[in-house]
Amino acid sequence: MVSKNQIKLITSLQYKKYRNDAQLFLAEGVKVIQELLQSNFVLEHLFVVEDVFPKVADAQKTVIREQDMKRITALSSPSPCLALFKIPAVTTIEDSGLIVALDDIRDPGNLGTIIRLCDWFGVKQLLCSKETVDLYNPKVIQATMGSVTRVKVNYVDLNDYVSKTQLPVFGTFMDGKNVYNEKLPAEGILVLGNEANGISATLEKIITNRISIPRFGEMQQTESLNVATATAIFLSEFRRNTL
Amino acid sequence: MVSKNQIKLITSLQYKKYRNDAQLFLAEGVKVIQELLQSNFVLEHLFVVEDVFPKVADAQKTVIREQDMKRITALSSPSPCLALFKIPAVTTIEDSGLIVALDDIRDPGNLGTIIRLCDWFGVKQLLCSKETVDLYNPKVIQATMGSVTRVKVNYVDLNDYVSKTQLPVFGTFMDGKNVYNEKLPAEGILVLGNEANGISATLEKIITNRISIPRFGEMQQTESLNVATATAIFLSEFRRNTL
Repeated sequence: MVSKNQIKLITSLQYKKYRNDAQLFLAEGVKVIQELLQSNFVLEHLFVVEDVFPKVADAQKTVIREQDMKRITALSSPSPCLALFKIPAVTTIEDSGLIVALDDIRDPGNLGTIIRLCDWFGVKQLLCSKETVDLYNPKVIQATMGSVTRVKVNYVDLNDYVSKTQLPVFGTFMDGKNVYNEKLPAEGILVLGNEANGISATLEKIITNRISIPRFGEMQQTESLNVATATAIFLSEFRRNTL
Repeated sequence: MVSKNQIKLITSLQYKKYRNDAQLFLAEGVKVIQELLQSNFVLEHLFVVEDVFPKVADAQKTVIREQDMKRITALSSPSPCLALFKIPAVTTIEDSGLIVALDDIRDPGNLGTIIRLCDWFGVKQLLCSKETVDLYNPKVIQATMGSVTRVKVNYVDLNDYVSKTQLPVFGTFMDGKNVYNEKLPAEGILVLGNEANGISATLEKIITNRISIPRFGEMQQTESLNVATATAIFLSEFRRNTL
């Protein structure tokens, strides 16, 4: 049974304002919830249609009917489980290793996919500009497929961070140097820009290394790669020689 | 003004059966429609809220009200234009160059993104298994961002094609050889599998070269890369030495 107040709380967590007020976020799907349960994230409450997580204490778990799940889910095809987790405290940033920085990424699917890519390529820190879509947006959590438990995400003033870092900074621009010919370091900051406008003019001014994925083929009409697929290729280039 | 019959036809084109019956598909958004108009695709009819395409003859164009656009659009935020194009005749496959083959890709966004990647990396032919999502699904057309005009897509029996091709065939598997150490040819077939199950067992049996993107980092828990981001990295590897 889900109470009216629970429904109100859960559906409100679609919105950043209410997530901040409650300091809670939503996770759905067996895989995502499983990874969160095995991590340092703290469970607030679990709703299940069937008891897919028998190890979770009864006090933290409510078995509900399928039609109730349909009322609280954010998915078009609801999964058998939905969980509320506490938003953890913000951690400090270590200015070392390979760091990915996102300047105003708006699409939740793109942010989620980029977090999954960071996880795959052993990037432990992701910096997001304040305008970037919220990490705890349910669509972002969904798209990370659990990788959110292994990548540290911080929202910062990117202009400020980039101007102070000790690491070399690489910005991705259409007119940058061919990334395939660059000797890329093991440590550095890789900056990717907004889906429509790229890296902001202010940030661009303080970036010294401009890199680009060259276009192939004769037509050369494709305007740009999707930011998540571009991130995949840049991270692959940073890592391919370090194995 | 949109007639009841037009509304019925347009909304029916969300479904493959009705697209096949009418031999028409939907395109929305200024960029996608513009690229289709400049290509060999044949326009059936254009609906616009404002006249964004003044060069299209009046007989092929209807100016409609915004509320009518909302009734016919497949998008959650409707664009100022929607067009019906004729589904072109199926073309023959040339067994040469770098070809991408998709074994049962189900997500329209993934197929669209992969077509955009093919375009970027100069891959002119994409083969899809019969179970792969339909190219003329409106979400696929949308996600290609116009690249559909520059990449030839054929639906084939992949087992049959792969067993007969003269080209070397590369399958992407979790346990394949490290792609970064492989000498990849300029011509060949790159096979990618279904989002959940990978390449089918039948097709796997006839693939000789197994390649993989290695995982980095200590945790090694990320199960797999999204198929579109994996395609980005594999195509980058095939092309990076050919510039």
